[in-house]
Amino acid sequence: MNNPTITFARPTTPEADSTPALRDALARCRESGASRLVFAPGTYHFHPDRATETYLFVSNNDEGLKHIAFPLFDLTDFEIDGDGAAFVFHGLILPFVALRSTRITLRNFSIDWSRSFHSEADVIDATSDHVDIHIPEAFPYRVDHGQLRFVHENGRLTRIRNILEFDSARRETAFQVFDNYGIGDRCRAETLASGHVRLHAAFSTPLPRPGNRLVLTSEGRHCPGITLDGCTDVRLIDVTLHHAGGMGVIAQHCRNLTLERTCVTPPPDGGRMISTAADATHFVNCAGLIALIDCRFEQQMDDPVNVHGIYARISARPADCIVEIELKHHQQFGIDLARVGERIEFVDGGTLLTTHTATVTGVERLNRRFSRLMLDRPLPDSVRIGDAVGNLDWNADLTIRGTTSRGNRARGFLISTAGKVLIEDNVFHTPGAAILVAGDANHWFESGAVRDLVIRRNRFENCNYGVWGRAAIDINPEIEPAHRAGVRYHRNITIEDNTFIAFDHRILRGHCVDGIRIRGNRIAFSTTYPASNSEAPVFDLSECSHVDIADNAIPPEFKAALVS
Amino acid sequence: MNNPTITFARPTTPEADSTPALRDALARCRESGASRLVFAPGTYHFHPDRATETYLFVSNNDEGLKHIAFPLFDLTDFEIDGDGAAFVFHGLILPFVALRSTRITLRNFSIDWSRSFHSEADVIDATSDHVDIHIPEAFPYRVDHGQLRFVHENGRLTRIRNILEFDSARRETAFQVFDNYGIGDRCRAETLASGHVRLHAAFSTPLPRPGNRLVLTSEGRHCPGITLDGCTDVRLIDVTLHHAGGMGVIAQHCRNLTLERTCVTPPPDGGRMISTAADATHFVNCAGLIALIDCRFEQQMDDPVNVHGIYARISARPADCIVEIELKHHQQFGIDLARVGERIEFVDGGTLLTTHTATVTGVERLNRRFSRLMLDRPLPDSVRIGDAVGNLDWNADLTIRGTTSRGNRARGFLISTAGKVLIEDNVFHTPGAAILVAGDANHWFESGAVRDLVIRRNRFENCNYGVWGRAAIDINPEIEPAHRAGVRYHRNITIEDNTFIAFDHRILRGHCVDGIRIRGNRIAFSTTYPASNSEAPVFDLSECSHVDIADNAIPPEFKAALVS
Repeated sequence: MNNPTITFARPTTPEADSTPALRDALARCRESGASRLVFAPGTYHFHPDRATETYLFVSNNDEGLKHIAFPLFDLTDFEIDGDGAAFVFHGLILPFVALRSTRITLRNFSIDWSRSFHSEADVIDATSDHVDIHIPEAFPYRVDHGQLRFVHENGRLTRIRNILEFDSARRETAFQVFDNYGIGDRCRAETLASGHVRLHAAFSTPLPRPGNRLVLTSEGRHCPGITLDGCTDVRLIDVTLHHAGGMGVIAQHCRNLTLERTCVTPPPDGGRMISTAADATHFVNCAGLIALIDCRFEQQMDDPVNVHGIYARISARPADCIVEIELKHHQQFGIDLARVGERIEFVDGGTLLTTHTATVTGVERLNRRFSRLMLDRPLPDSVRIGDAVGNLDWNADLTIRGTTSRGNRARGFLISTAGKVLIEDNVFHTPGAAILVAGDANHWFESGAVRDLVIRRNRFENCNYGVWGRAAIDINPEIEPAHRAGVRYHRNITIEDNTFIAFDHRILRGHCVDGIRIRGNRIAFSTTYPASNSEAPVFDLSECSHVDIADNAIPPEFKAALVS
Repeated sequence: MNNPTITFARPTTPEADSTPALRDALARCRESGASRLVFAPGTYHFHPDRATETYLFVSNNDEGLKHIAFPLFDLTDFEIDGDGAAFVFHGLILPFVALRSTRITLRNFSIDWSRSFHSEADVIDATSDHVDIHIPEAFPYRVDHGQLRFVHENGRLTRIRNILEFDSARRETAFQVFDNYGIGDRCRAETLASGHVRLHAAFSTPLPRPGNRLVLTSEGRHCPGITLDGCTDVRLIDVTLHHAGGMGVIAQHCRNLTLERTCVTPPPDGGRMISTAADATHFVNCAGLIALIDCRFEQQMDDPVNVHGIYARISARPADCIVEIELKHHQQFGIDLARVGERIEFVDGGTLLTTHTATVTGVERLNRRFSRLMLDRPLPDSVRIGDAVGNLDWNADLTIRGTTSRGNRARGFLISTAGKVLIEDNVFHTPGAAILVAGDANHWFESGAVRDLVIRRNRFENCNYGVWGRAAIDINPEIEPAHRAGVRYHRNITIEDNTFIAFDHRILRGHCVDGIRIRGNRIAFSTTYPASNSEAPVFDLSECSHVDIADNAIPPEFKAALVS
């Protein structure tokens, strides 16, 4: 353990590029066997020009030939300690990508971009056929031939894909507003004055309110913040993501991940409403334990946490022991569903029930979409083209504790893992469901069923003020009502000792669960928002078995639970 | 030589996909050592879904993760004989890609797409602020919110990037019309009737003429027809390219290529004006002999032939024997400028003169744009950041004989190779210069100087009826006039025994040549088009040495040669 630490001490100006010096420093770490790279305090700028380049398939983000500032490939026992440094990225570059590495720690730094991938604007006026906006200088733009284009580093232009209104005072999505997907194509822009633009288009109702902030997204998910693939024992400690052009942290095929005091939040100067362009954290086909402790996920443009597997679809059955599978969601292309020696399940697309299991003895990858799997046993005729295929071996345990989620678009924690899941002592103020337990083989192709989920001592503060949920806790496997009879997709869910502050009367909704225990919860009626769904049962369960509801404190405003 | 031939005998319907069967057939050829794959006559359809996938950097086309129908990788002594088969491709798929292969023959088939990458429309009416068009059914489209979008396989939509008018009767670009680049962004579309659309936009003048055909390009160059990289001794014989979503044939780092009776031409049914979306053939950093014999290149949207190297730019000089180079043109990214053991030249960006040479002893590729080259000797101070770098070892000899070029957009043969070049017995009717000998280190970064170029017994029929040339033969190295004095970039050019049928009086224009011999040429004045440039000298040479002009038959309409 000679020379265990190399120090990187070159704070640079925005024009200077720390990427080549970082490349050299990482090479020196490898050559010398150093186990730590420590930064001197300061701000470091990273440009894509001379960055390492690798084609990456990143689940639920956009695949592509990526430029990477910190390429942590095939490393063991390595720590990067920012000592409070600010890392600022410029343009199309991925900050951290760890591939096939073990015992990696990232500690004590922040990530931001010089120019955010999204843009923002303040509402000046709104009518049924136009909205006038003011665009702050942080979001350069042009109006060309009636089209609003945002200007990024090196003059790169982007179009508008979606516009979503945020309440400027509350710093959250405006009450029950909808996305305006596709509005860029039907929107004519007119310059009113410098920084002032009129957008001629019919916005979704309720119309944007003057003084509120519009978030204009114009990008896919090209540049997630921290990307982990095939890694084991990774820790992120005191890492703050002010922005990312994709998800904040995305991990796939990883084992044992700890995020401690990892924050996703805009920079503190208040100039931006939005932090990351998509989910704060997302975990696909992981194993071991995922632990999120004392984190804060706010203002990102999608969910704070999503843990799930992937369902592929059977596209052909060329032989008894061979199945051809197709990945269906374009942001899952290129992810291996299963490798040799792993167990897979065959799932009826309608009921999501497992009809057969097998072990993979060979894989022939045709391309990023199609693979042929060789199996250890013949498939029965009941397994049909169109059925789903999931992996039984990659199912992480999950603990989320002491974590606050608020101010984002969409939902809270999306839980689809068969591992042991503990969600405790968290605070939620999410515009959709705070906890969604889904699973589907038709749209997102995100498996799978939970087997042991405990939700306790959490505080749910006025969730569902937006349009992205059916209840504070929403158990919603995507099984058509006609197929639900007798189907028990999820199992063993405990909801205990939680506090719900609620203007929306829908605390829990679910179906197709075997074993659900709802005890010791306290509900308080809130007038912070207009009362919503006051005719809905406080707990609404159908097609469930072994339901245990007891000792919950429910105020009289709420309708009794309905178990059908 | 047991089982030297495998027969592929599965003509399929358009819905069926021959790609998986072809994959199996190629695997059987490898396993059995078969040296030929022969097709039964018929039409074969190839879809991208299950095609081989490889990330390709294809010079002067678009890089990307490509789907490939015929992946001919690392093969030796292999022939594909179509026996007249028609290969029809669907969507984003590359027909043929040969990598690192030797002695490959492709013979006797045609290539087309079910839906062309470009679209076409007939002009009904044109005014200064709109053009009314009729769009044939072969080019499905939609008008969405005032935007014309073309519909491709699987519903993929494309926007308009350029519109160019073709003379329907002559089947060539309309007389002296210009491209309308960027018109898609400033063009509002209005549906007049089924198949009839009004495009509200100011077109370039002269305005489109009713009855003429507009070619609307909406794509980059994603899918060249035949892509050859790192191959030796490749022959294309009796291959017809009716279309490609990029260049017809693109070869890079190849040695010894023969194209015999290779035709680029639209399908014979007359439904399309355009064949390939870009150059018919293009050769970058090749060596050995490139022979094009009895070919026909017509109706493609760019030049019939281009043979050149690549100039990179010095971006840093980190040490005496190390130079960092940057590829500048985005469609050259990822192409290795030089490998270990190869000789390179350093070129003054202003004069294009070689100031230094060295041999590469090591290469560190930072990414597709930047590389560091280690050199066998120190660089003198006179080699500066911003200077160009070329490769001295990859310079092909070139013979083009018996080949007809007509009906395309832009120029004819672009010759930038230091090898021995023989252009004889060809027929040109090109809208720009029939032969362009350029070289530049500022825009296209296409090297290099010719050393031995013979142009003889060709027939130049009314070239330069478009806007893409300065003379039938245009020697135009991109050296600023202020830098030309004494500079002799090209050498030893012979123009002999050619026939020029010309309405445009500019037969030859050139500068910075050492050794130019113009003998025995016959010029005939033509009235097919309006006389053009009647004040221009028939031959116009400046900054040339060893000029030999004699025995040319020049009618009295033409001004005398000017050698200044």
